[in-house]
Amino acid sequence: MKNIFFKKNNKVYIKDVFSCLKLNKSKINFKLGDIKELNIATKKDISFFHSKKYFEALKKTKSKFVITQKKFKNILPKHIIPVEVNDVLLSVAKVTSMFYPDALEDNFDQNVKAINNKNFINLRVGQNILLGNNVKIGKNCSIGHNTIIEQNVIIGNNCNIGSNVLIKNTIIGNDTNILDGAIIGKKGFGFFPGKIKNIRYPHIGSVIIGNNVEIGCNNTIDRGSLSNTTIGDGTFLDNQVHIAHNVKIGKNCIITGQVGFAGSSLIGNRVMIGGQAGISGHIKIGDNVQIGGGSGVIKNITSNTKVMGYPAKNIRSFLKENKIND
Amino acid sequence: MKNIFFKKNNKVYIKDVFSCLKLNKSKINFKLGDIKELNIATKKDISFFHSKKYFEALKKTKSKFVITQKKFKNILPKHIIPVEVNDVLLSVAKVTSMFYPDALEDNFDQNVKAINNKNFINLRVGQNILLGNNVKIGKNCSIGHNTIIEQNVIIGNNCNIGSNVLIKNTIIGNDTNILDGAIIGKKGFGFFPGKIKNIRYPHIGSVIIGNNVEIGCNNTIDRGSLSNTTIGDGTFLDNQVHIAHNVKIGKNCIITGQVGFAGSSLIGNRVMIGGQAGISGHIKIGDNVQIGGGSGVIKNITSNTKVMGYPAKNIRSFLKENKIND
Amino acid sequence: MKNIFFKKNNKVYIKDVFSCLKLNKSKINFKLGDIKELNIATKKDISFFHSKKYFEALKKTKSKFVITQKKFKNILPKHIIPVEVNDVLLSVAKVTSMFYPDALEDNFDQNVKAINNKNFINLRVGQNILLGNNVKIGKNCSIGHNTIIEQNVIIGNNCNIGSNVLIKNTIIGNDTNILDGAIIGKKGFGFFPGKIKNIRYPHIGSVIIGNNVEIGCNNTIDRGSLSNTTIGDGTFLDNQVHIAHNVKIGKNCIITGQVGFAGSSLIGNRVMIGGQAGISGHIKIGDNVQIGGGSGVIKNITSNTKVMGYPAKNIRSFLKENKIND
Repeated sequence: MKNIFFKKNNKVYIKDVFSCLKLNKSKINFKLGDIKELNIATKKDISFFHSKKYFEALKKTKSKFVITQKKFKNILPKHIIPVEVNDVLLSVAKVTSMFYPDALEDNFDQNVKAINNKNFINLRVGQNILLGNNVKIGKNCSIGHNTIIEQNVIIGNNCNIGSNVLIKNTIIGNDTNILDGAIIGKKGFGFFPGKIKNIRYPHIGSVIIGNNVEIGCNNTIDRGSLSNTTIGDGTFLDNQVHIAHNVKIGKNCIITGQVGFAGSSLIGNRVMIGGQAGISGHIKIGDNVQIGGGSGVIKNITSNTKVMGYPAKNIRSFLKENKIND
Repeated sequence: MKNIFFKKNNKVYIKDVFSCLKLNKSKINFKLGDIKELNIATKKDISFFHSKKYFEALKKTKSKFVITQKKFKNILPKHIIPVEVNDVLLSVAKVTSMFYPDALEDNFDQNVKAINNKNFINLRVGQNILLGNNVKIGKNCSIGHNTIIEQNVIIGNNCNIGSNVLIKNTIIGNDTNILDGAIIGKKGFGFFPGKIKNIRYPHIGSVIIGNNVEIGCNNTIDRGSLSNTTIGDGTFLDNQVHIAHNVKIGKNCIITGQVGFAGSSLIGNRVMIGGQAGISGHIKIGDNVQIGGGSGVIKNITSNTKVMGYPAKNIRSFLKENKIND
Repeated sequence: MKNIFFKKNNKVYIKDVFSCLKLNKSKINFKLGDIKELNIATKKDISFFHSKKYFEALKKTKSKFVITQKKFKNILPKHIIPVEVNDVLLSVAKVTSMFYPDALEDNFDQNVKAINNKNFINLRVGQNILLGNNVKIGKNCSIGHNTIIEQNVIIGNNCNIGSNVLIKNTIIGNDTNILDGAIIGKKGFGFFPGKIKNIRYPHIGSVIIGNNVEIGCNNTIDRGSLSNTTIGDGTFLDNQVHIAHNVKIGKNCIITGQVGFAGSSLIGNRVMIGGQAGISGHIKIGDNVQIGGGSGVIKNITSNTKVMGYPAKNIRSFLKENKIND
């Protein structure tokens, strides 16, 4: 899938990668297509392997060049040429920056202009609205006062965007409301700690918001790093919710106030989460799960279960241990 | 009490209600006054009964028409004509929308205009302030930059409103400060989950803020659905606090940073709540209660007690169980 | 050290202090320099002693006049003249207001003007930016749309300030990013509860932010009361973090989303704090401490330890008690 928002440098050769990573000069001359995760990389793309968790994907990958550590060299499939480094993810960040130089900086959009609502069909607009390049807005939408829609935003039909909102790098479906003060599509909190200076990694993903969704006031929703941050159809978020990069929330979920999601977690459909609950990073929550308010979820939760507590456990155990009648 | 902010449709007949709820045609022709909770409904108003918790109010209600389920039909007082439905609260939402068609949508106010401070007595104003219809501001107030005061706001004397604030449907007393970035008076997080689309219910309540109150930066305070959200005299809220619809907080409370209140809870006077604590919905907290930081309060708390923990318990038990010296 | 931001009244005599605190008339006539904590007060300054915790500082202080309670009168060094009051901190607040009358009010800055980027070296600016008096901005910075930089702000080189940001009374180093919606430098949540009206105390401190720092979206960082709120070099804060007055965070810390700090805590270097964790007031956290997401830290943590839980304890105990494999 082509990255629709971030402009790709189409002249990245494998020898440039070796040079950027300060490795011995590469004898191979090969023009790379992109940098992608193992399971979606084509034979033109460079990929990476940093944890045995992805061994199945490694065996099946079409990628020819894989950034990895010495210790994994022997388990690589024969068709793969290793790009051997000390720190895989740091190297991935550097190579991603070669392909997508614009995805690293995340400062304000200097190309915004005052909106002209005559360019859109039946658009109701507030005052002081700014619009960047590559912004599409469907029919019958409204946009509140002081809202800034920076570059790379596609909004469907019948959407209502509140006041003081900031959106960039985001695709929004139909019949969706974004309430006041929400900040959507900024880069996530991703970097490699350094002694003097942390090194940020680029975020080439977007935020994808479905149909009939509601995003509450003062929410912060970061865009993905290599994949997208997504919020499924019919999902409602209350105020002051924080969603980190790469989180994927299913359909018809109900997320109440001040809930927080750490990066890269997968949330199923029809999940209900009580106020102030927190979801750790890189975990999976099934369908129809109910999570009590204030819970701290630190491991996977299977579908159709109710949990509560910190750490979250089956709600019956929680209530019993705390001598609360169900 | 008349709803001062939302315009009422004065031509709602009981036969319209039957038709809206897709019931058999009503034989009665009766012009309804309003939709109200059992205890405050007059004999002209329609009301509703959906839980035995309200049985005492049901016995005493003056209302003649009560929306309820079949299973409750036999316990209704004789003077009441039941409006029998499958889902009481969903039907209440629909009927409320008939009376208050403006209370369902909550998009930005298209009628705001740049403020003219000469219309007010000794008002100090920042730049880019927008003011809606039906806004009253007392003497000696100040309003910061980029602040939007939408329709239906009454502000007392000697109040200071910060910058980037958004207020609507709110009454504020005297000597009260609203700090920067606060969002006050939006509809609450109330809806009926649907397979494709959630159905929102109207919010015809307001936010009522007392005298000598302080509302912190980036707070979100939603207005009530059928009743009001209220904050008593002398109560101070720190930054990033979230208050859901219908919550009623008493006088001289101290609410520290990032505390969250779920809907419809009642908080007494002189209650102190530590940072990040969460208060569940529909519970009652007495006077002089102290709630430790990070606590999760999920049941009623009697007056003059100190609690801490998740779930919150007597603070001595919490400290003892966790081997902490008092 | 001179207070660079708040203008000092240089005509405060000890007799004015006695009069302001409604004490018996002072027989001494002495012009005071400032009000300072015991350890930094010079012989011209007035200081205060309200807790035995500060007995060592009391013994060594150069201050000649110390506000204190009757019960501490006998333990004062002989060179000190006691200013005897019932409520020490309330009296300190009143005396601080005499020295710094501007530090009590915290309303919007009426002296801001539209920015003129020609006054700065290579400054990229968004639209609708407002700038107060006494603002310095270094080379190669950027400032986003609708941002308000009120009085008393010094920004270093190569800094990026986002959109909808509000800053005042703050010093920022080089190469630092302040993301959108952050509110920095407001007075803290400090006051003395009163029956009718709470009495605020003045905040004469600033916010001091180091080099290579990142402050996330919608953060709130309050300035100090008597000392400063500081954030060390290389420290990164995620979105929706709240930092109360006088908190001092060391270098190279990583603070994830929705973390909250109560007032006056000291955080060491290279501290990592998971999402939604809360740090109580007036505690000390050492270097290299790791605090799990959702933790509630209510006592000091020694360097080089990992903690988790509410209340936070050694992570191995937490995992063992909750039967979680490490």
